[in-house]
Amino acid sequence: METFELESISYSTIRRIPLYMPVIRQAATEGQKMVSSAKIAEMLHLDPVLVRKDIASLGITGQARNGFDVLEILGRMEKILGMANTNTAFVIGAGNLGSALANYGGFAEYGLQIVGIFDTNPGKIGKEVAGLTVLPMDKFEHLVQRMHIPIAILTVPAAAAKTCADMAVQAGIRAVWNFTPTKLNLPPSVILERVDLAASLAVLSSKLASVLKS
Amino acid sequence: METFELESISYSTIRRIPLYMPVIRQAATEGQKMVSSAKIAEMLHLDPVLVRKDIASLGITGQARNGFDVLEILGRMEKILGMANTNTAFVIGAGNLGSALANYGGFAEYGLQIVGIFDTNPGKIGKEVAGLTVLPMDKFEHLVQRMHIPIAILTVPAAAAKTCADMAVQAGIRAVWNFTPTKLNLPPSVILERVDLAASLAVLSSKLASVLKS
Repeated sequence: METFELESISYSTIRRIPLYMPVIRQAATEGQKMVSSAKIAEMLHLDPVLVRKDIASLGITGQARNGFDVLEILGRMEKILGMANTNTAFVIGAGNLGSALANYGGFAEYGLQIVGIFDTNPGKIGKEVAGLTVLPMDKFEHLVQRMHIPIAILTVPAAAAKTCADMAVQAGIRAVWNFTPTKLNLPPSVILERVDLAASLAVLSSKLASVLKS
Repeated sequence: METFELESISYSTIRRIPLYMPVIRQAATEGQKMVSSAKIAEMLHLDPVLVRKDIASLGITGQARNGFDVLEILGRMEKILGMANTNTAFVIGAGNLGSALANYGGFAEYGLQIVGIFDTNPGKIGKEVAGLTVLPMDKFEHLVQRMHIPIAILTVPAAAAKTCADMAVQAGIRAVWNFTPTKLNLPPSVILERVDLAASLAVLSSKLASVLKS
């Protein structure tokens, strides 16, 4: 029985789920059965009205005095993030960033598992990164299809980003997590989400240059 | 002789500088003295009008036929990102993400050098990460002041983010690069820039869950 529509939950609410989950998980670990939105808001220094609205938009109705069922909220959040089934991903680009992401264990908490890493550079192919052997890009399509990999994590140099993203789409990838500074134009059926570390650092550095000279 | 005002350059332009720099550097490496905005736009699949406006806002005036002076643009971009002097940073949080960022060599390209990593967990203190010994947080303030460190990179668990950010501000840090999901309220004199990997992954995962079930 679904009492919520995933499509009706705003992305700003979804972006806050990773913020809520550790607090609610902690409540579950401590044996609490119910948790109030006011308590969650207090622990996270958020506006209680915002937290109440977020939880309501997940389709969870609380009880005025006792708050919300801890396990119900957790289950709903895990469902929204697709954590019931683990999502597998291939990293394209075995450079510093690709290796760092492959080595980073924190994504497992959100159901993401990196199961392969690819590069075009013959000097990198065959090396080991995070327990995975770096594979050549010409094996990418075959393995995406055989292993039913939905996600490509793109960490190649800016100049190679377009070509590699096109190869990923061609191979049947459903979602591209783009860590390159390149803005990609993919077919609308392919999910595209971007983390631009270089742009973020550029803004931080320029602000810092501005205050340090004054 | 300054012909530009850093404050007048928009952050959307600054965010694109890391995209432009590799292409212009490549032109310099190939011995080209001049580069046109049309050529840059073509290589990056960007709108030529946007590129021309970005370069103009850097205070660089080109020559109608020949384009822009390669070394002048590069120098200006490096100046804007404060790359003339390397910015040093301390990482707070020696977990997976903190270690990955400390190991990631790519920031050096933008003048950022990670020179220390701190944690409160006695099990992590003394271990080696990216050639640095993990130090206890109670040495943070003294070392920030002695080494004149302007940037703290925050990679602690969400629940510890506020306390650690306050310690960083107290120690005299000028800029916090926040990789935690926690929204921080810092004094306006402290620069705050955020990269929220978990939120980005949450959006990607929920979109994927939505298309995979359909």
